[in-house]
Amino acid sequence: MMDGDVALALRRAGLDDGDAVWDVIRPALRAGETYALPRDISKADALALWLAADRETWLAEDQEGRTLGVYYLKANQGGGGSHVANCGYMTAVEAAGRGVARAMCAHSLERAGGRGFRAMQFNFVVSTNERAVRLWRAFGFETVGVLPDAFEHPRLGVVDALVMHRRL
Amino acid sequence: MMDGDVALALRRAGLDDGDAVWDVIRPALRAGETYALPRDISKADALALWLAADRETWLAEDQEGRTLGVYYLKANQGGGGSHVANCGYMTAVEAAGRGVARAMCAHSLERAGGRGFRAMQFNFVVSTNERAVRLWRAFGFETVGVLPDAFEHPRLGVVDALVMHRRL
Repeated sequence: MMDGDVALALRRAGLDDGDAVWDVIRPALRAGETYALPRDISKADALALWLAADRETWLAEDQEGRTLGVYYLKANQGGGGSHVANCGYMTAVEAAGRGVARAMCAHSLERAGGRGFRAMQFNFVVSTNERAVRLWRAFGFETVGVLPDAFEHPRLGVVDALVMHRRL
Repeated sequence: MMDGDVALALRRAGLDDGDAVWDVIRPALRAGETYALPRDISKADALALWLAADRETWLAEDQEGRTLGVYYLKANQGGGGSHVANCGYMTAVEAAGRGVARAMCAHSLERAGGRGFRAMQFNFVVSTNERAVRLWRAFGFETVGVLPDAFEHPRLGVVDALVMHRRL
């Protein structure tokens, strides 16, 4: 934790946490600036992804039980690629800048290591998402790929996406 | 076409082409040396991928109507990433070295361009799959990412995977 960070408890999400998950992820999905998913994705389709059977999903809650963040952890590939983990993090709009993503990333790295994953990879970090890129770098992630013009940003036009990786 | 290449016709696969698709992809899936999928994947699960609603699947047939190759074409990402295509190609074991992958790749690039995709990306080219890497390079693909130790090869141990990309 750093100064100004909110105290959080992490717990596994269940299928009955759909509303809490949706409240966190909906604004970012509608904005369409960070995830390569349709901006008009339905609640059902989004939750089918975030609570899919191939991943575990965690909620970051403050001391009043409010959900301030959501992340999922899964194998990035199957078969011969299943030793590399993948995560996706979302912070509630009202909690931006309070260490929620940092707490989730720290938790996910420990969790992934404990499950035996040997590395973590982010497949599509929008290069203009500077706060995220800076945070992943602080956690030891390196850019192992640059996908040229891979993302059509709603405000900024066509921008690169990054593949980021660190060993566990 | 190059000398020694077999003459092929490409046609769209339908749901009733499952057996033909499976005959082509099964040996490569069981070998587990080129795709990051479980080596023991069932026929149903494999066909659910290869004939999924999010992609179009093409068969490469020789003049006797034998299926010598299968490929799929789809958007690599949704939303702001949907202008980049992705393909997966498989050649029948008995047809290796006869230009089947070359014919499929040429077809897929034209098809993807015709559909308005602006680039094609391969997310996970096993670096030891030298024949494939050489072929994609000949088609103008560049390595835009190296995923360190991303693939556990059944014979060669842990090897890198490549992210390859070309504009359309």
